Amino acid sequence: MTTVGILGGTGPAGRGVAVRLASAGYEVTLGSRDAQRAADVAAGIVVRGSGSIRGAENADAAGCELVVVATPWDSAVATVSAVRAQLTDKVVVSMVNALVREGKELLPIYPPRGSMAAQLAFALPDSVIVGAFHHLPAREMEDLDSGLDADVVIFGDDATARTRVAELVDSMPGLTGVVAGSMSLASAVEAFTAVCISINIRHKAHSYVKLAGLHH
Amino acid sequence: MTTVGILGGTGPAGRGVAVRLASAGYEVTLGSRDAQRAADVAAGIVVRGSGSIRGAENADAAGCELVVVATPWDSAVATVSAVRAQLTDKVVVSMVNALVREGKELLPIYPPRGSMAAQLAFALPDSVIVGAFHHLPAREMEDLDSGLDADVVIFGDDATARTRVAELVDSMPGLTGVVAGSMSLASAVEAFTAVCISINIRHKAHSYVKLAGLHH
Repeated sequence: MTTVGILGGTGPAGRGVAVRLASAGYEVTLGSRDAQRAADVAAGIVVRGSGSIRGAENADAAGCELVVVATPWDSAVATVSAVRAQLTDKVVVSMVNALVREGKELLPIYPPRGSMAAQLAFALPDSVIVGAFHHLPAREMEDLDSGLDADVVIFGDDATARTRVAELVDSMPGLTGVVAGSMSLASAVEAFTAVCISINIRHKAHSYVKLAGLHH
Repeated sequence: MTTVGILGGTGPAGRGVAVRLASAGYEVTLGSRDAQRAADVAAGIVVRGSGSIRGAENADAAGCELVVVATPWDSAVATVSAVRAQLTDKVVVSMVNALVREGKELLPIYPPRGSMAAQLAFALPDSVIVGAFHHLPAREMEDLDSGLDADVVIFGDDATARTRVAELVDSMPGLTGVVAGSMSLASAVEAFTAVCISINIRHKAHSYVKLAGLHH
């Protein structure tokens, strides 16, 4: 059994992934700068399934076998850099999107290296970065009864790590992993999150990407 | 009835849009640099529905009431610039994606102004640019029996023009228009085409984007 740590895991994005990982049987550590807050958030989540969710400092979450980065984009590099040693030789999953709100839209920001995944790869030269979980509606992720049936676009340069993350995603209820390709696609995957959220704001919806006609 | 011209309409992308516009009753002019080639392509398309498809020079296509740009990305600006006068005060729909093939992936290129739609807007200061039709699989578009049921993400700064294009899209069989927002989303919509095509190459599929959970 793989243990999964979620850096910055107390926000809506991290909680949603945690709920569905625990439902699939994983032992999840929600990391935060504030261990007490993480413990409180974890205690407030009703786990359904054979897994577990506990709260801890980000450094504890970084000690897990697989680590997901779910911080806001503007603190992602600082957060992973602080636990770089614990992340050595591990697969680190970036679900970070650099977005800015402008009126009723969310717009993509292109980080200096093109994507947040590339920023994390630069900050963590001894880890393997895989991107996933970008386009998911947080509230529907956290609610196991929401009927979510989403495709999760996965990218990264390491084929073994991509496959491992795809298998992890496939094991989570309501999600199907779809490997898109290399890190060269990172900016396009991350930026499309702005489109998804802007559509949901405009249409007062909680829609998500389904790749119709894709036979897994 | 609106007449629709398609600049660079003889390629797979243009043909697919033409087939579904004609099926919805529109009179479509497929434009090309080579009028004879356009006439030959148009003659080879079996029109089903009350509309029509004829081939002509790009200048003729640009004379239609609504104009779609379906050229390769690296000839789009030159093509529209040559017919700028005919496009004055018209809605010009960009379905152009700047992509480059690298091995088994298609990767996004970010034009100097961020998107091809922005490049076209700069080249056509007296036209109204709307983006649409980016993520569609060409073969399934052209085949009215393919069972296509795709969402078409639409963006642009002019709300009236966006709505007009959304209504056009809604009238086409198998397509539903979804307004995402302003031109600020153009790069994200266009670049995601690279992800869609890369997924289809990798998974030997002809998938397309469906926004599940979106109630129109």
